[in-house]
Amino acid sequence: MTEQPSSDPSVRARPVAGGPPVVGVVGGGQLARMLAPAAARLAVPLRPLVRDHDESVARVHPDVVIGAADARGLRALAAACDVLTVEHELVDLDTLRALEAEGLPVRPSADTLEIAVDKVRQREVLAAAGVPVAPWRLVASLEEAEPFADAHGWPLVAKAPRGGYDGRGVWFVDDAGQLAEVLAEVAGPVLLEPALPIERELAVLVARRPAGEQVVYPPVETVQVDGICHEVLLPGHLTDAQDRRAREIGALVADTVDSVGILAVELFVVDGDVVLNELAARPHNAGHVTIEASITSQFENHLRAVLDLPLGDPAPRVGSAAMVNVLGVDDLDPRTRLADALGHPGASVHLYDKGPRPGRKLGHVTATGEGLTAAREHARRAADALAGGPRRSEQEATT
Amino acid sequence: MTEQPSSDPSVRARPVAGGPPVVGVVGGGQLARMLAPAAARLAVPLRPLVRDHDESVARVHPDVVIGAADARGLRALAAACDVLTVEHELVDLDTLRALEAEGLPVRPSADTLEIAVDKVRQREVLAAAGVPVAPWRLVASLEEAEPFADAHGWPLVAKAPRGGYDGRGVWFVDDAGQLAEVLAEVAGPVLLEPALPIERELAVLVARRPAGEQVVYPPVETVQVDGICHEVLLPGHLTDAQDRRAREIGALVADTVDSVGILAVELFVVDGDVVLNELAARPHNAGHVTIEASITSQFENHLRAVLDLPLGDPAPRVGSAAMVNVLGVDDLDPRTRLADALGHPGASVHLYDKGPRPGRKLGHVTATGEGLTAAREHARRAADALAGGPRRSEQEATT
Repeated sequence: MTEQPSSDPSVRARPVAGGPPVVGVVGGGQLARMLAPAAARLAVPLRPLVRDHDESVARVHPDVVIGAADARGLRALAAACDVLTVEHELVDLDTLRALEAEGLPVRPSADTLEIAVDKVRQREVLAAAGVPVAPWRLVASLEEAEPFADAHGWPLVAKAPRGGYDGRGVWFVDDAGQLAEVLAEVAGPVLLEPALPIERELAVLVARRPAGEQVVYPPVETVQVDGICHEVLLPGHLTDAQDRRAREIGALVADTVDSVGILAVELFVVDGDVVLNELAARPHNAGHVTIEASITSQFENHLRAVLDLPLGDPAPRVGSAAMVNVLGVDDLDPRTRLADALGHPGASVHLYDKGPRPGRKLGHVTATGEGLTAAREHARRAADALAGGPRRSEQEATT
Repeated sequence: MTEQPSSDPSVRARPVAGGPPVVGVVGGGQLARMLAPAAARLAVPLRPLVRDHDESVARVHPDVVIGAADARGLRALAAACDVLTVEHELVDLDTLRALEAEGLPVRPSADTLEIAVDKVRQREVLAAAGVPVAPWRLVASLEEAEPFADAHGWPLVAKAPRGGYDGRGVWFVDDAGQLAEVLAEVAGPVLLEPALPIERELAVLVARRPAGEQVVYPPVETVQVDGICHEVLLPGHLTDAQDRRAREIGALVADTVDSVGILAVELFVVDGDVVLNELAARPHNAGHVTIEASITSQFENHLRAVLDLPLGDPAPRVGSAAMVNVLGVDDLDPRTRLADALGHPGASVHLYDKGPRPGRKLGHVTATGEGLTAAREHARRAADALAGGPRRSEQEATT
């Protein structure tokens, strides 16, 4: 999703006219691909902005605009939709602001996206609203870092102030020498945080309408390896107090950033308390489990919110559910292993039709049931079968 | 789905080549539309044969062949797919047989489709296999009908020997005069059956692979008005013995007709016993509830079976579920009423994007939960909101 070649934007298929509002989506990856069936069910016209016809959503959806997430592409999409949303945050925010000023509903707004992308502003705005955030400091040099290192001790975590996902833009630094390397690589200030003794990672999804009506999904536990989400568990291994606190924080963050659509709030459990990690103002990997596990999926509630329609019930339909990502181990198309994966009859397989390569998210598998352990085991086996082998570390196996 | 103008068949989008097998689907209505997301999840290329780009599936799926279900259209589809299946039975069976002879996997086979369509052959084949069928007689004249009427008494049920669905091709005849009218209308022999004292109507779905491996879905109760399915309840109001018997009959029928894909077996409960009503060798309205309620939906299991992949678990994920069809009351697009329908937060709305007209199936709503009564009420309210009013009879309200 990072490289968006500036091809000629061209609109395909039906123009905007009378009839139901067309939802334009910036981005054509798996999130747009999973939005498509939610839109089809409601007979809502969906029009993603994609790089080319080989992108994940374009392989299963007839109505796309070709272009990059730059000024030209965004304007082509804007001309072909009635409300604009995103499946990723790597968007030209200046153009989004201009489109908002011209009267196009942009949901989430450019302001919300800015807060999701800009980690410094995010921490300032949320801390001011009472959201618990870890200690942090923006530093441009080793001298500026010294007091923070003295206060919290090495190792520290350094983060690029903007962008970064799936572990990119985040470094563990053991000493001043390593920090100097990161400062040189980023070529600008970096955000420092203590290396927190993280007990668990959580995510809470909030679906929110333009006037502020919102529903909060039950918190899930996310199992991350090297910053990449491997598994999602519903319910997570949380105390009642942590569960309540995660929901409170999710609702507070959504109101504070004035989100519209799905807001994914990633959280840490540290010393038993819940603190903010990151935000994403869009459907999120942590919410894929809602397709099978929830009365209303994150994808449908994103569309409902973006269209300012009543939100659906976020409660689970099932006792427990586990989602395991299919992370490429080799260069083989996971479809060649479909028969093996489907041999696990309780697993719901989702493939994204993306070119396979090691480490790439090629799909996910969800299993539901009364017992979380069994669901997790079913999902893992099918995901391993698709990927061509397990990608879990020893650490994760004991989580 | 009855009128298939013979337009120029033309293939659109990707050709058949290396890569995963392409599933060709005869028909472009709501069943193909609901197959599409199941195919997308497995990254299985799906290529429906549609009349035009306005058909239900073509509005949400990029890869279609334009043509009728006649020799020309079927050959165009066959040239563009690796395995051929159907979403309706109104297909040129001679061409299907020729394609089979030429080596194309046709699933279900022309023989299976013939048995589903030909009510006389269906009864002969199934009765011979031990499937309980109601008494019947094929008659071409009042004289031939007389002994049957003497044995069973008026009123009788007359059925056209081929085709017919949603109550079409079925007549209640009170006396010889009415039967004469039907014989004149059909202009050929009709199938006579007693007017059975039907206590309940059931349906059992069977997913079956080419070598005979099959899974049987839990029987559902279908609530019909004037031969049109209005509601589907899971579980149905069945005794354990009836539930067991329905599954046995479903499995026996699937083996007997050598089905591949989903086979929907419609059943009556008469005097406490379960007897056959009709067959459909494809995904079926009675199985829409499986999208939300089952670990594997009928649409996914249809694709798995057609591709000879391991079948998914047909067990419910939920305690109970109710599906209510959205039957048009007026000419208004149900999307204009979406906000009202979505105000019922537990309802899962499916719209088919078909031109609205009174009586037409425009969509359906499913609700799940621990209690069937509550689920049914939620689904009814949302369906009524979409349709613009209730279409249930007094009789049905008390079921």
